[in-house]
Amino acid sequence: MKLATIRHRDQTLYGQVSGDWFYPAEAALKTRYTTLKDLITDGALTQLAAQQTRQEDGINLAHVSYLPPIPDPGKIICVGLNYRKPYPVDGVAPPNPSQIILFGKERDTLLGHQQKLETPAGPAAHSFDFEGEIAVIIGTGGRHITADDAMTHVLGYSIFNDGSVRDWQKHSIYAGKNFSGSGSWGPWITTADEIKNPATMSLTTHLNGQQMQNTTADQMIYSIAAQISYASHLYELQPGDIIATGSPDGTGGSRTPKRYLQEGDLLEIAVSGIGLLQNNI
Amino acid sequence: MKLATIRHRDQTLYGQVSGDWFYPAEAALKTRYTTLKDLITDGALTQLAAQQTRQEDGINLAHVSYLPPIPDPGKIICVGLNYRKPYPVDGVAPPNPSQIILFGKERDTLLGHQQKLETPAGPAAHSFDFEGEIAVIIGTGGRHITADDAMTHVLGYSIFNDGSVRDWQKHSIYAGKNFSGSGSWGPWITTADEIKNPATMSLTTHLNGQQMQNTTADQMIYSIAAQISYASHLYELQPGDIIATGSPDGTGGSRTPKRYLQEGDLLEIAVSGIGLLQNNI
Repeated sequence: MKLATIRHRDQTLYGQVSGDWFYPAEAALKTRYTTLKDLITDGALTQLAAQQTRQEDGINLAHVSYLPPIPDPGKIICVGLNYRKPYPVDGVAPPNPSQIILFGKERDTLLGHQQKLETPAGPAAHSFDFEGEIAVIIGTGGRHITADDAMTHVLGYSIFNDGSVRDWQKHSIYAGKNFSGSGSWGPWITTADEIKNPATMSLTTHLNGQQMQNTTADQMIYSIAAQISYASHLYELQPGDIIATGSPDGTGGSRTPKRYLQEGDLLEIAVSGIGLLQNNI
Repeated sequence: MKLATIRHRDQTLYGQVSGDWFYPAEAALKTRYTTLKDLITDGALTQLAAQQTRQEDGINLAHVSYLPPIPDPGKIICVGLNYRKPYPVDGVAPPNPSQIILFGKERDTLLGHQQKLETPAGPAAHSFDFEGEIAVIIGTGGRHITADDAMTHVLGYSIFNDGSVRDWQKHSIYAGKNFSGSGSWGPWITTADEIKNPATMSLTTHLNGQQMQNTTADQMIYSIAAQISYASHLYELQPGDIIATGSPDGTGGSRTPKRYLQEGDLLEIAVSGIGLLQNNI
């Protein structure tokens, strides 16, 4: 199942995507669960799955505006430097980290599919970069989750652009990663039952049609299970929490010459089994 | 005015503190604004201030359980290494930063006054540390706020313990700063009109009665106004957002020998003009 939150005729709707159609949650379900996060938190996904998807009840995807699939996540947990070929930033290739590296993003840093990214104001615009990533969305919360048990906590997967302002990242990782509207995720969450082997997911980023990043999830230094386990030792993971699992080689700041984002660019991140996240800059 | 959120007889109440009494928001106000954040967001503080504080309507402070004054802040923005005498962590005294250093905390890292801090599980317990700080609470939101204008955005001030797990801080600042229930703030927010000159606020931390930290706000490297301005270039600051303004010399990890927190310890952080934040470990 593909879970999305969209705007249509001045309404915010959540529901499922099938083919070219979006099927909003029926009124009774929407009354009980105002948001997709509420529905997930109550473990009521089967009620959404049980709904009819008759084409006459659907909205053609050409007529929807995408929001982030969960617009109000509790936590957006990001993993840094997590691919076997670490990408150099400003010419310095960091060693593989001896521990998982985490940082946090605030909610308003993230837009949805096909929303125009916000170019940071002032000089920060000159080091505005992308990072294509696979996102994991927590379905069942928990604390002190073991790696063996971790994948049972996954609701599904999505596509993530960890927008970064490299000059401000030199002040602190938080500053570089938290510019409003600098990143995005979506278009939807593909539930875990549709991704038979998460380690084989492939990730490809194109900028104006040119391939910039290309990897598979098995190239992660720390697996998705290890990331979930590690984060759950800090605090209770909650339904709807997002883990962005790190970006491979090929971001704009890692290239010679550097290729930062510019007005008019089209960023496209594809993940096999999920789809394509597109954003104009 | 002193603004607090408390638990009393299985109810969560917000209101004002005067002397030894807590005066909850009247029913009409509570119906309109469910939380203190809602009230602040709507700029309705004067309605709370206008309420009668007759002792027969008050709850004696001896009978309340304190929550964080705003239990559901949108952002908890923390500033690192912000005092003129930077404290060494593990023997290394970092230079004064050339830029403000920010990191983020999730909501469930923070408890209220007199709530027992959670000792991290496992080996993380052995480097559990405190950081006494002055917290600034945003009243009027904004983006790209100038330092000259910044103080007009302040609702008030509070006392903050930036609980830190030093061994995990070596993995990433986010990990070390985000253990559930490791920090606290409160007991209340003292509104800005009661703090005539914020730069003269003094901060003192005691552990089991022994003084550990002692400074004044004018020893900050980056002023409160500079911090507000800097953060507002990342994103829109919102009413109820918290900025923890950094901790001075004297934390447990900076001492020789180190003095980390242990079960049974009493941590007390005092800020002049506000009061005393107490937590047992």
